[in-house]
Amino acid sequence: MSQKLLHLRPGARVAFQGEPGSFSQHAGRKIFGTGIEPITCYSFEDVFNAVVRGEAECGVIPIENTLAGSIYQNYDLLARHPLEIVAETSLRVEHSLIVHPGSRIGQITHVYSHPAALDQCKRMLRRFSKIEKVSFYDTAGSVKFIRDNKLRNAAAIASEDAARIYGMRILRRHIADDPENFTRFLALSRRGRFPRGGAKTSIVFGLKNEAGVLFKALSVFALRNIDLSKIETRPIRGRPWEYQFYLDLQIDVRSRECINAFRHLREMAPYFKVLGSFPVF
Amino acid sequence: MSQKLLHLRPGARVAFQGEPGSFSQHAGRKIFGTGIEPITCYSFEDVFNAVVRGEAECGVIPIENTLAGSIYQNYDLLARHPLEIVAETSLRVEHSLIVHPGSRIGQITHVYSHPAALDQCKRMLRRFSKIEKVSFYDTAGSVKFIRDNKLRNAAAIASEDAARIYGMRILRRHIADDPENFTRFLALSRRGRFPRGGAKTSIVFGLKNEAGVLFKALSVFALRNIDLSKIETRPIRGRPWEYQFYLDLQIDVRSRECINAFRHLREMAPYFKVLGSFPVF
Repeated sequence: MSQKLLHLRPGARVAFQGEPGSFSQHAGRKIFGTGIEPITCYSFEDVFNAVVRGEAECGVIPIENTLAGSIYQNYDLLARHPLEIVAETSLRVEHSLIVHPGSRIGQITHVYSHPAALDQCKRMLRRFSKIEKVSFYDTAGSVKFIRDNKLRNAAAIASEDAARIYGMRILRRHIADDPENFTRFLALSRRGRFPRGGAKTSIVFGLKNEAGVLFKALSVFALRNIDLSKIETRPIRGRPWEYQFYLDLQIDVRSRECINAFRHLREMAPYFKVLGSFPVF
Repeated sequence: MSQKLLHLRPGARVAFQGEPGSFSQHAGRKIFGTGIEPITCYSFEDVFNAVVRGEAECGVIPIENTLAGSIYQNYDLLARHPLEIVAETSLRVEHSLIVHPGSRIGQITHVYSHPAALDQCKRMLRRFSKIEKVSFYDTAGSVKFIRDNKLRNAAAIASEDAARIYGMRILRRHIADDPENFTRFLALSRRGRFPRGGAKTSIVFGLKNEAGVLFKALSVFALRNIDLSKIETRPIRGRPWEYQFYLDLQIDVRSRECINAFRHLREMAPYFKVLGSFPVF
């Protein structure tokens, strides 16, 4: 929590997957403040492309949820795109059941939301066995959809923000099965220089297919007391049963220990990339 | 490759997600031979439940694909269910474009398949920009669906097996973008004793939230020259930003080194479970 906000000029364009009222946009305001201009994208890949092409100065993506796990697609996109992580934040995800003003629970036949949100509210949905679940690409977008299409027999699952933005009514609050529901978000940019005050450094690397090689790779951090907050593995395309490793380290990339550890890791890693060194908001 | 087949009495029931002709059923025949009676399940969770309840003697699930990565849902289900991995095999996944006999490519307006298969054939599908993609719960099931519903303007993406079983025609073979497409499958049972000839041992464990703790956990294997073929992490429900670790070790659970390594790991792991020790077919 080294800074209040990451500086971006007023009116700077920031790309998000999903409509206004999405959890990503909430995360974006936590990092950049309210002076940004949101750019709505259909997919996570569109967010990456908007930043690469300069259509947006930054992008914000979810990377991990405490119930669903990593958003693996975004790990793959991080490795493939020439972007840098410039900030991280996390949000408690609180789902509400949202309807048209005047609609009552008894008349609801369909519930629209992102599949992850539908999955996280299973217990509440089971109580209404006749309600049909409909998958949608975005939580806030599902509120906009039932409003724009005047679906008075439908509800959406999204944030309180989304209900307010689209002038809809909250029928039930805190409807998720598990209250320990947090999502971690990353802000991305093309800037190519690490912001000061990096609390974390993220890297991706490949290793030779040899016995004990992951243990050796982790030793470069353990020997220097660099703490690891996350390890993730993803397959390497075209090389069956080989993996690349993503690590989050609790250290600034500019520190002496980090510079030494990376030099050491490069001795054994045929592929190595720093994804970013960044403050946590 | 220690054995030809895993012994199961003739007519033993084996649970699979997906219809006859699915890649899982192909994997099941590679492990158990052709004398089994397949039980079709709608979801992976149904496969686990069928074996737990004794409705099937074994179940077969995919655990990892070389393009899409781990099937994380099945990792979570493995940790939650009292089942044991008794065998592993892998298959090259070869997709075909399948239609009604007599249907021509020019008249196809919709393509049905599992989302992963649609995703793996993007390049081919892009050439037919007017074809709409429809997600289906299973590859072989999509062939059955377009046959049963006499959809002559539709195609399905599935295995050659599926085309043969449902009497449909293969319009294009080898339509996947990337030929290095393999899936690894596990056979599960309630048996509770490890089969002889274990080439691999799979475990899941939790660690205290301390600096360097994963490095120490991997040291119990590195110090004994036990090779690690896979590491996977998944979040722990109710404990935000804490993880459980899944390891595949290239060793028989009955070996002296493995027994010692597990005793050593238990000193530092508050949670530890052996998921199985099994031959590879």
